[in-house]
Amino acid sequence: MASVGENQNAAVAEAMVHSLKPQALLVSREAKEADTVVRAGSAVVGGGSFTVIAGPCSVENAEQMVCTARFAHKYGASILRGGAYKPRTSPYSFQGLGTEGLELLAQARRLTGLPVVTEVMDTQDVDLVESYADILQVGARNVQNFCLLKRVGQARKPVLLKRGLMTTIKEFLMAAEYILAGGNDQVILCERGIRTFETATRNTLDLSAVCVLKEMTHLPVVVDPSHAVGNRRYVKPLARASLAVGADGIMVEMHCTPDKALCDGDQSLTPADFKVLMSELKAMSGLRQVWLAC
Amino acid sequence: MASVGENQNAAVAEAMVHSLKPQALLVSREAKEADTVVRAGSAVVGGGSFTVIAGPCSVENAEQMVCTARFAHKYGASILRGGAYKPRTSPYSFQGLGTEGLELLAQARRLTGLPVVTEVMDTQDVDLVESYADILQVGARNVQNFCLLKRVGQARKPVLLKRGLMTTIKEFLMAAEYILAGGNDQVILCERGIRTFETATRNTLDLSAVCVLKEMTHLPVVVDPSHAVGNRRYVKPLARASLAVGADGIMVEMHCTPDKALCDGDQSLTPADFKVLMSELKAMSGLRQVWLAC
Amino acid sequence: MASVGENQNAAVAEAMVHSLKPQALLVSREAKEADTVVRAGSAVVGGGSFTVIAGPCSVENAEQMVCTARFAHKYGASILRGGAYKPRTSPYSFQGLGTEGLELLAQARRLTGLPVVTEVMDTQDVDLVESYADILQVGARNVQNFCLLKRVGQARKPVLLKRGLMTTIKEFLMAAEYILAGGNDQVILCERGIRTFETATRNTLDLSAVCVLKEMTHLPVVVDPSHAVGNRRYVKPLARASLAVGADGIMVEMHCTPDKALCDGDQSLTPADFKVLMSELKAMSGLRQVWLAC
Amino acid sequence: MASVGENQNAAVAEAMVHSLKPQALLVSREAKEADTVVRAGSAVVGGGSFTVIAGPCSVENAEQMVCTARFAHKYGASILRGGAYKPRTSPYSFQGLGTEGLELLAQARRLTGLPVVTEVMDTQDVDLVESYADILQVGARNVQNFCLLKRVGQARKPVLLKRGLMTTIKEFLMAAEYILAGGNDQVILCERGIRTFETATRNTLDLSAVCVLKEMTHLPVVVDPSHAVGNRRYVKPLARASLAVGADGIMVEMHCTPDKALCDGDQSLTPADFKVLMSELKAMSGLRQVWLAC
Repeated sequence: MASVGENQNAAVAEAMVHSLKPQALLVSREAKEADTVVRAGSAVVGGGSFTVIAGPCSVENAEQMVCTARFAHKYGASILRGGAYKPRTSPYSFQGLGTEGLELLAQARRLTGLPVVTEVMDTQDVDLVESYADILQVGARNVQNFCLLKRVGQARKPVLLKRGLMTTIKEFLMAAEYILAGGNDQVILCERGIRTFETATRNTLDLSAVCVLKEMTHLPVVVDPSHAVGNRRYVKPLARASLAVGADGIMVEMHCTPDKALCDGDQSLTPADFKVLMSELKAMSGLRQVWLAC
Repeated sequence: MASVGENQNAAVAEAMVHSLKPQALLVSREAKEADTVVRAGSAVVGGGSFTVIAGPCSVENAEQMVCTARFAHKYGASILRGGAYKPRTSPYSFQGLGTEGLELLAQARRLTGLPVVTEVMDTQDVDLVESYADILQVGARNVQNFCLLKRVGQARKPVLLKRGLMTTIKEFLMAAEYILAGGNDQVILCERGIRTFETATRNTLDLSAVCVLKEMTHLPVVVDPSHAVGNRRYVKPLARASLAVGADGIMVEMHCTPDKALCDGDQSLTPADFKVLMSELKAMSGLRQVWLAC
Repeated sequence: MASVGENQNAAVAEAMVHSLKPQALLVSREAKEADTVVRAGSAVVGGGSFTVIAGPCSVENAEQMVCTARFAHKYGASILRGGAYKPRTSPYSFQGLGTEGLELLAQARRLTGLPVVTEVMDTQDVDLVESYADILQVGARNVQNFCLLKRVGQARKPVLLKRGLMTTIKEFLMAAEYILAGGNDQVILCERGIRTFETATRNTLDLSAVCVLKEMTHLPVVVDPSHAVGNRRYVKPLARASLAVGADGIMVEMHCTPDKALCDGDQSLTPADFKVLMSELKAMSGLRQVWLAC
Repeated sequence: MASVGENQNAAVAEAMVHSLKPQALLVSREAKEADTVVRAGSAVVGGGSFTVIAGPCSVENAEQMVCTARFAHKYGASILRGGAYKPRTSPYSFQGLGTEGLELLAQARRLTGLPVVTEVMDTQDVDLVESYADILQVGARNVQNFCLLKRVGQARKPVLLKRGLMTTIKEFLMAAEYILAGGNDQVILCERGIRTFETATRNTLDLSAVCVLKEMTHLPVVVDPSHAVGNRRYVKPLARASLAVGADGIMVEMHCTPDKALCDGDQSLTPADFKVLMSELKAMSGLRQVWLAC
């Protein structure tokens, strides 16, 4: 049992931490000035490249996954996304295919060569998901699931950490700090919209946060416009804006047949939409190099 | 592997759920009109009683826990609170005493007879925490940690579920539904303040939510003013308001020596504050019976 | 034309203001420790009393106004409310009866003896409204209409200032400061709900703000639960909570026939509701005196 | 006096309006499919062009205004901004130069040829401001000052209407509807950041709103990144993002010597910053034509 003395030590340690300046954090530019580059299979995130992650909200079946993955690959995505474990507001909604979904992701990777990012929701699933995925996603609702953050801090795979709907930038960075403090410095931050009073869009995409994050941290920052707005018509312009504001990439939902999607079909791009989006982003790449050089 | 046919079945099921009216939920008044009464040791929550849960933010050491517990018992609290596992924004803040904290809670229960509520943060800790605690707390940051909700749905102890900082009332009820759907109908809902633009208080206590919840669900609803405002001077009036608005109880932080608390000392009542609060609440109990009878 | 020198003086003045501590403000407890008591006709707001303001959202016609005013008077309201100028989101909604509405309010005052509070929306209407009303209301949407604040600062009638949906407590106090700085120290502050992400109620009533305001300012603070929740079923419990939290009064909407109201009928109490509410508040008055004495 | 019958007519009219679909609004694409083009002096807003409005927060003196205007003109701004009447949270802050500020704006227009936009805060000032300005600005805090909206609806000059800090898109469009209903169809909408829980930036720029607005209304939509973020370092990337998302222009603060600005100096671009920004925006104009053609 901890003696009173030990607790006093803890109190002293706490006070010390509070007095530390933020630059002491492992995630900060002060701790590491150069951009962190995250590598997963053939893909690179950060350090000047603009990375596109695409795929369906949920892994549904072999046909859907293979079809969507082929389009993602064909039009230039670097990483494939797809959920095998789905956090759903209702216990009666489709909860994901679990292990079977992981198998289908692995199959899609074999066929396309694209590395795979997929969500892990619980500490008990990290070993399993890590054995399949190239990047572990920690979802918006788990951004302050500190046990999970500690656990993926010990993983040997990169982590894509989504900002929560209610997470301040400071809290978001502290969540990433949990992972780095655990020994895993391969972390990608993902802005995906915050909850505000506005109801015309599902959430409010906070692109200012990209500017602030790029200034404060060396970790790469990507943007997920699909979940932010919940409407495919707005994904393309917001993806362009994400590139223009200085993000290191985007993550978008794309589905070979969105009308049949088991979840979030309204916000999924069709392959044709995705093709146009990729051509628009490519056309901006020259300008992007100029902006980065400033 | 699920065939396409099976997935189509899932899609059909999803569509059915979406078309269901909310009254079909297990948490709803339509499913069960009478108030649910949660029982834990000598304590009762819901069904007409007004229950006071008190104790320190964190279990720190034997002396602090015993001293605080004796005051809680002396002045009339029905349930003792104290955190052994602490969700902290920073990985460098005090993370709780863990198992040792659970032992100290058990010791305080032996000395006072008060049942104990304490937070469980991870599915892997549920068995352990359940073996010590009388009520399992799921914290605000885990209100949509669906794996944890499913797991405590299988526990044989009641669950106190805190509303998240940005959880809508509908999402809050759906989180509770996960627990009931798992087979555990002993759930206490706890309003603890939501995040808004206002920064004069730590969060904004949403007492309207108590009215809405009491109308929509049969589950008991308690209010935690301490975390909502983060300032002990405002806890007493907001506790009175919580009773006046129709809550089934309150959860307040109390510490024998708040100035030495390892966390949240500013919002902890002193034993003297708590004594006054309890006398004020008792003086309102006659009126409360009249209000409930309307 | 101001010379550069004069502008530099302005810059110096600005810098001085920024360095001033908040206690220098006229609204602050530091500037005036004792509670301000606002007097209007037979009514008193602040200084220990609990004042009930009641009446319809809009003045609609003589029959409605007289009928509602008689009930307000009969059951114990101290001040009558009713809108002659209505701020409406849509230009096509009923905009109020204007001067005719002011006449009807004056008629209701003659019949009941109750002083009248009504909204003024524009600087050009202040003279007219002041000639009829006992208290000038500045509505939530005009809380930072600084020209209007300056103008009512020169009025010889008290002002009821509503907090805006987006107004921080600090901004709210600064808005009141505009009125006091203009020479009118008879100001009543009114909390009426803030806009948050929650949509189950029209707005979120911020009762913590009452605690903070009562600590920071000597001005009386009343609560309008009707506009905050937009549903008459929740008005009674929130009115009780307003008293319990330490407010100096409430403002509620009451209509002799809410189902026929031209606006906000859903949130208007019936006369029968209002009678019960008043008896509940009266039953709490003894306890209130004890709380205030602490 | 309106008879009961007349009020019943009003109630019927109200019910009719509620049943009308939004496309009936004058601001809607359904009422007018083609983009509205607003013309002021030599400048055009909407209809395919990308318009840059630049200038200081406040008009301070002749030297500052002339110097800043010359830079705005030199680097390619189409419209000059500058506040003569300043809405300030504190009554003790610099409130603007008033008429003298209007004179200085007129002087700057003579020297540069740029049309001028400036804020009008009160109905009583509209005639005066209209006699000087080319475009009347209605500020964020007055977006639901319905008397002012009605008054500028009768003006013969275009109106730049800023979204409030907590105005929904629907409310924003209804505010514009007040102006069009008054007979003035020359309205520019301006997104300038909304108030959220995030405090790392002054407000949260809502670029999704541009997508929604461009879909729903024919009115031109510009973006003010300066007020949204309150930090000049973030203005350039957010201006690029505003163009990329489909806005019809931007409004940015620029000051010849930001360090000496009487207000908002932190968010004002230097002339050198502005020059770089303009070259970046020009480099995007070719791509923009392609995006608009899709």
